[in-house]
Amino acid sequence: MSEQFRINRRDMLRIGSVGAAGMVLGGSALAQSGEYLPPTEVDTGKVVGNKVIFENWRAPADAPSAPPPAPLPPEERVGFALVGIGRLSLEELLPAFGECKKAKVTALVSGTPDKLKTVAEQYGIPEQSCYSYDNFDQIADNPDVQVVYVVLPNSMHREYTERAARAGKHVLCEKPISVSSADAQAMVDACAQAGVKLMIAYRIQYEAYNRRLQQFVRQGTFGRLVGMSAVNVQTVAENGTQQWRHKRAMAGGGSLPDIGLYCLNTARFLTGEEPVEISASIYSPPDDPRFAEVEETVSFTLRFPSNFMANCFTSYGARDDKYQRLNFAEATVGMPNAYKYEGQSMLIGQRQGENDGETELVIQAPNQFSEEIDHMATCVLEDRRPYTPGEEGVQDHKLMEAIYQAAQTGQPVQLEPILGLDAFRGDPATENS
Amino acid sequence: MSEQFRINRRDMLRIGSVGAAGMVLGGSALAQSGEYLPPTEVDTGKVVGNKVIFENWRAPADAPSAPPPAPLPPEERVGFALVGIGRLSLEELLPAFGECKKAKVTALVSGTPDKLKTVAEQYGIPEQSCYSYDNFDQIADNPDVQVVYVVLPNSMHREYTERAARAGKHVLCEKPISVSSADAQAMVDACAQAGVKLMIAYRIQYEAYNRRLQQFVRQGTFGRLVGMSAVNVQTVAENGTQQWRHKRAMAGGGSLPDIGLYCLNTARFLTGEEPVEISASIYSPPDDPRFAEVEETVSFTLRFPSNFMANCFTSYGARDDKYQRLNFAEATVGMPNAYKYEGQSMLIGQRQGENDGETELVIQAPNQFSEEIDHMATCVLEDRRPYTPGEEGVQDHKLMEAIYQAAQTGQPVQLEPILGLDAFRGDPATENS
Amino acid sequence: MSEQFRINRRDMLRIGSVGAAGMVLGGSALAQSGEYLPPTEVDTGKVVGNKVIFENWRAPADAPSAPPPAPLPPEERVGFALVGIGRLSLEELLPAFGECKKAKVTALVSGTPDKLKTVAEQYGIPEQSCYSYDNFDQIADNPDVQVVYVVLPNSMHREYTERAARAGKHVLCEKPISVSSADAQAMVDACAQAGVKLMIAYRIQYEAYNRRLQQFVRQGTFGRLVGMSAVNVQTVAENGTQQWRHKRAMAGGGSLPDIGLYCLNTARFLTGEEPVEISASIYSPPDDPRFAEVEETVSFTLRFPSNFMANCFTSYGARDDKYQRLNFAEATVGMPNAYKYEGQSMLIGQRQGENDGETELVIQAPNQFSEEIDHMATCVLEDRRPYTPGEEGVQDHKLMEAIYQAAQTGQPVQLEPILGLDAFRGDPATENS
Amino acid sequence: MSEQFRINRRDMLRIGSVGAAGMVLGGSALAQSGEYLPPTEVDTGKVVGNKVIFENWRAPADAPSAPPPAPLPPEERVGFALVGIGRLSLEELLPAFGECKKAKVTALVSGTPDKLKTVAEQYGIPEQSCYSYDNFDQIADNPDVQVVYVVLPNSMHREYTERAARAGKHVLCEKPISVSSADAQAMVDACAQAGVKLMIAYRIQYEAYNRRLQQFVRQGTFGRLVGMSAVNVQTVAENGTQQWRHKRAMAGGGSLPDIGLYCLNTARFLTGEEPVEISASIYSPPDDPRFAEVEETVSFTLRFPSNFMANCFTSYGARDDKYQRLNFAEATVGMPNAYKYEGQSMLIGQRQGENDGETELVIQAPNQFSEEIDHMATCVLEDRRPYTPGEEGVQDHKLMEAIYQAAQTGQPVQLEPILGLDAFRGDPATENS
Repeated sequence: MSEQFRINRRDMLRIGSVGAAGMVLGGSALAQSGEYLPPTEVDTGKVVGNKVIFENWRAPADAPSAPPPAPLPPEERVGFALVGIGRLSLEELLPAFGECKKAKVTALVSGTPDKLKTVAEQYGIPEQSCYSYDNFDQIADNPDVQVVYVVLPNSMHREYTERAARAGKHVLCEKPISVSSADAQAMVDACAQAGVKLMIAYRIQYEAYNRRLQQFVRQGTFGRLVGMSAVNVQTVAENGTQQWRHKRAMAGGGSLPDIGLYCLNTARFLTGEEPVEISASIYSPPDDPRFAEVEETVSFTLRFPSNFMANCFTSYGARDDKYQRLNFAEATVGMPNAYKYEGQSMLIGQRQGENDGETELVIQAPNQFSEEIDHMATCVLEDRRPYTPGEEGVQDHKLMEAIYQAAQTGQPVQLEPILGLDAFRGDPATENS
Repeated sequence: MSEQFRINRRDMLRIGSVGAAGMVLGGSALAQSGEYLPPTEVDTGKVVGNKVIFENWRAPADAPSAPPPAPLPPEERVGFALVGIGRLSLEELLPAFGECKKAKVTALVSGTPDKLKTVAEQYGIPEQSCYSYDNFDQIADNPDVQVVYVVLPNSMHREYTERAARAGKHVLCEKPISVSSADAQAMVDACAQAGVKLMIAYRIQYEAYNRRLQQFVRQGTFGRLVGMSAVNVQTVAENGTQQWRHKRAMAGGGSLPDIGLYCLNTARFLTGEEPVEISASIYSPPDDPRFAEVEETVSFTLRFPSNFMANCFTSYGARDDKYQRLNFAEATVGMPNAYKYEGQSMLIGQRQGENDGETELVIQAPNQFSEEIDHMATCVLEDRRPYTPGEEGVQDHKLMEAIYQAAQTGQPVQLEPILGLDAFRGDPATENS
Repeated sequence: MSEQFRINRRDMLRIGSVGAAGMVLGGSALAQSGEYLPPTEVDTGKVVGNKVIFENWRAPADAPSAPPPAPLPPEERVGFALVGIGRLSLEELLPAFGECKKAKVTALVSGTPDKLKTVAEQYGIPEQSCYSYDNFDQIADNPDVQVVYVVLPNSMHREYTERAARAGKHVLCEKPISVSSADAQAMVDACAQAGVKLMIAYRIQYEAYNRRLQQFVRQGTFGRLVGMSAVNVQTVAENGTQQWRHKRAMAGGGSLPDIGLYCLNTARFLTGEEPVEISASIYSPPDDPRFAEVEETVSFTLRFPSNFMANCFTSYGARDDKYQRLNFAEATVGMPNAYKYEGQSMLIGQRQGENDGETELVIQAPNQFSEEIDHMATCVLEDRRPYTPGEEGVQDHKLMEAIYQAAQTGQPVQLEPILGLDAFRGDPATENS
Repeated sequence: MSEQFRINRRDMLRIGSVGAAGMVLGGSALAQSGEYLPPTEVDTGKVVGNKVIFENWRAPADAPSAPPPAPLPPEERVGFALVGIGRLSLEELLPAFGECKKAKVTALVSGTPDKLKTVAEQYGIPEQSCYSYDNFDQIADNPDVQVVYVVLPNSMHREYTERAARAGKHVLCEKPISVSSADAQAMVDACAQAGVKLMIAYRIQYEAYNRRLQQFVRQGTFGRLVGMSAVNVQTVAENGTQQWRHKRAMAGGGSLPDIGLYCLNTARFLTGEEPVEISASIYSPPDDPRFAEVEETVSFTLRFPSNFMANCFTSYGARDDKYQRLNFAEATVGMPNAYKYEGQSMLIGQRQGENDGETELVIQAPNQFSEEIDHMATCVLEDRRPYTPGEEGVQDHKLMEAIYQAAQTGQPVQLEPILGLDAFRGDPATENS
């Protein structure tokens, strides 16, 4: 056996030899309980301001840990009243508050007393902070509530936003802001008059993958953005005729304001531009009572001032799919699950040295609802204008009205160009929301 | 133009026509604010017991929503004291409590007062529930604490488990349970004597994808399990010589007990079997002070009674990778990120009708730390034996000692076969933890 | 050590023991050269007709091998003359003939003598079967040529198709068939008059993944097809102004007839339907000489009689991307590389038992050019009408003219509905082409 | 409408206007047949030496086309005789010759006359170049044959290699070279004595993705290679007892020499190193007649001089899977289908700027069989030593014998270290094979 190899064998066994005493099966361990560093060495992490900071303990080849969350002390957080405790509130929003760092739920509003009681108990909301739709206005007297989060059918958004504003509370309102641009504008006006903030819950604008994609677009990372294909479709139960989503008066439309809105709003958000031309085509299966009042399917194309074009498709008739694909001069970006509650991903097709490659980017993506809610809390705490204020919602309604008009008349609708970027947005959310 | 087509055109436009009044750009909307269903129709969801249940509102082609979480009221939850507020506690565990349904943090223990004060404020822990390592035993008098969660360097696990047991508190202890099987057994004995529960925080055994994979294995969904390749590697900073993980007395070993343990423990968990033969090979770069006391790299092979074989590989020298691949008679299952804190996925290669297909399964995967903690809370609330009790940790230490022995002697180690499945496990976690 | 285990150990070693004599390192092998089955047992496979058939030697969990190719003897194959030996001919078509089973190259036509000589030598084409554009008509006298494959700039397709037809040769013509529907129709008429077949080289209609997708659509495997998003974009060199593709007279258009045609043609092919409404929008960067005559970018939407809608996007301004995504009632199908020369794939998102899953289907996909060429050869051998005859090309030109008109006028174009499926197609290609 | 927008509209329509005359539906096209560039401008591409070269016509964001193949004229190619026309020959090798650039099939050898006749006709092999096993030696007189490609059961490799060498023909022999290292060495000696080349058909060493991976390893692109997990498993039909693969005397072993060999050989090929320590474990299901003589499953671990370790797993009991995963200091590389006939891919997990990313690399991957065969042809044409000569096969047999010994004795086998890289390899294949 060569010298070289024997050296290798020795190296290989060296570590084993050091620990030999502790390695015999069933024997006494070298490593003994009680041997430890003094606590100050064990408890790593320094306090800087009100945060704990750790050093990176990994080599550069590995992702460093994100800094640990530094939540605001419970008593300093902004209190939210949730108006409406349906599916979205129970499945997503109430759990999301558990991941918030600046917000907390302090009141609930509901029309069904037993559900209200059950949910209030689950989340520790005291009885005196539970309201019905009738006595909702008494919320004005509740100092634990600074923001009212309206999670009701679309046609009710205006009333509860206005009542909240009159009660002196800021408003976070689910999308779409309302059922028409006129109503939406009235809500904006009411909040302005009352001196309260109005933010629309466009969660995608607070979602980490879409925000990164926005950076790529704005910074020109992949060159000119040429086109986008956006899909937001899902099914509704066949016996779902009683759902408010199928009633025009309640919903303001069908798949378009409910889910197609994500395609529209995200195209605007990513580029910061506003469309100048819209064409559209609508289809609803005849004789299906679910689509007697509202549309099932809309295809629409947006043309923007930079001549970027977005092909959008939404429907209640196809299995759930929320996909967007962007074609840049120098890259293709696909985002499966682009508009889902979670599970976003991003695939970037690009020239990589002498090869083509498709890279799946891994981004730390916190709960998007928590991010959105914390942004509203931050705006209250720091008196900032929300990134997605009521005006953002008004503009989407104007554009949806143009989509319906284009489909109805069979004529593309031309829109007055709007100069500048982010014409309807407020202060961007930062890393600290 | 054919009759058929004219009908189609009419259908196409019908919806648009219905809503025409509301569609004119800038006009008055047909859908008017204030038109809404009575609140009882809006607020869907029925209360059953202490839960709210919704009907499925999607067609069968789409996944139904999971039932909304039904957290225990805060005052009914099990209180946990966190011993050690290092990286894992701050980055993962404290946030995970925000997603728990049965557990809450009620006390903190730390040796660094300013960090303790900062973190206690962030999470609303009252000053009287903050302990140092010195006065930790006073926790016996704290009725808000039912479980002590030990999150310290390995060599300290025994002491704090024993002190907690003496204080009459149940113990949830991070993995590995200790630094040797002898110490581990002493911990089990101490808890038994004190009449408190001891659970080891094997989070993977509570992680949704791995649990589903366990079902596949146990139910024989893909036929006999023939082999498994498991990898758990990551890097450590080059200047990391002061970390306790590099000190044998503190850590009990290097990459093996820290991360290689996942390969070992998961192979046991998935099959329920215990290995009968172990071979192993170790390597550490000579002259690297980080690996003067503990090993960098271990390759080991486990053979189980069913003759299923697991090839495992762990190292501190390679970029982060936590992968397992299982070869069944009728399928291949790959799990990228198998042992990560989040982001698990599962790819199943299988014959599908007349084609081969690889299916990526989408599973609702809650925060695995929250699931683990809630399981401990459930065991306390329902007086059940934890699924991963101290004995599970003792067995892993015995096997790791066999791995070290095999590497040191250059001889495979034969182990007494253990009959039956899940010899060291308690009551399985259910869907409600 | 328990009895059970000892038995296991014995089983485990049994095989080893059997072969012991042959296993000693460097020793004499038990398995000795010269020991073999009689040739009839070695040479498996039976001759059935003119094919060799093997039994499946794998378990049902694995894909059986496809039957081995059974190429026609060289002298029985159909001889093709390639007119134009530019990029496509050299990079794709000539190599593809090496994978054909019924076709062979027997003549070449080119205007550059040194290139003609070089390529003829490489592929063993005799000098007397090499033609210039001037003496091309002498091909009439070449009995080795049955089909002329026209691979020239679009505006030259008509002339060479007509000359080939006059020479009594069948014609396979690259897509687009020509530069206008009028020219296209003239080509169809000329071939009909001459009694020769005319096929357009729509390779996607012969590509395995797209053909499987067609089956899914036609058989309703995933329910109603609701929408489709199709993208075909690629870049052109900045100094590419001299390319014929940028000259309207030569190309008939820009990205639309060159690559956007794939979106249009594939939507028609998959459904068998013909569009009834087309809207479109065009953009070309001003002052870019490459786009002085032809368009850079086109977005167009097709509506079909079944109310299926296809959003299509094509451009010369974005990095190569050839993607289609289909939204069905019960599944989502994504096809990266849908229109590429190779590398197609198919991902099917679908409910799978109690989970959502995305399945990547693995299909045996032969060279699509070879399949296309062999289909033409089969049509000649069996006197069948090509699946993609000249009429298929005429229809695409009519539709592209409608797209240009819609973009130019800003008005959607309504088209006379065409009853029935596959109105312009011939006999489907079978598994044997 | 603002000025800016009107300008945009004009730009948008400008292109349309230019082409207006040709755009009216059904009208006369502006682009008219017959308008074309002179042929010399159409026929792009320059002749350089005996190759045609095209300029890149795409922007740098897109992959440039590979240069078109420049096959040797048929009469200059190296002629191969195929000995054995079983599954591999018919399904893979004969078709692969259609994609070769330097090789051609000129003779066939078989023991079943009707199959021989059928296949000879399909591939145009003249009757006088068809041989039986009896009259095979007459091939010495056939000037069209320069290489004999042995595609027979393993135990027959030696005889036919020796007979071919005696006939003065070079030999390309399927893997494994034989059934023992002794036989393998005899083959090497026989060819050396006869002055003919001997190459073993290790196709993976000629496969594009594995070759690129070799570059990454050798150039240290991702830092030190720490570990590798390699799997090669597949099933065999249950009634497959009569297959020669289940007879030790014919096959020399079970899954190990047939498919496990790929894991072993590729680990050696990628690093260029030779293992110094081997441990192994074997299992065969008792009472399964298929595994009465040969093993079903082998797990083995290789340790190399650089302390890189490879965990390998092979079995006839699991669904087809051919996977390798490499853990480097700075990246993880996964290769699904690593050892398949086609469909290789490569996923590289790596730090990318501020993110983690997993990149799927797209590499032009020609038919690996054609590459392998063309390499042998090149070695004949240029009198070079094959990259995978007989010695490469001898070494694999020695290592497989060590694997069997380790499994049988339950003791790792230590091997004499071999200095230098690629100790048993010849001249590397170049891009031109």
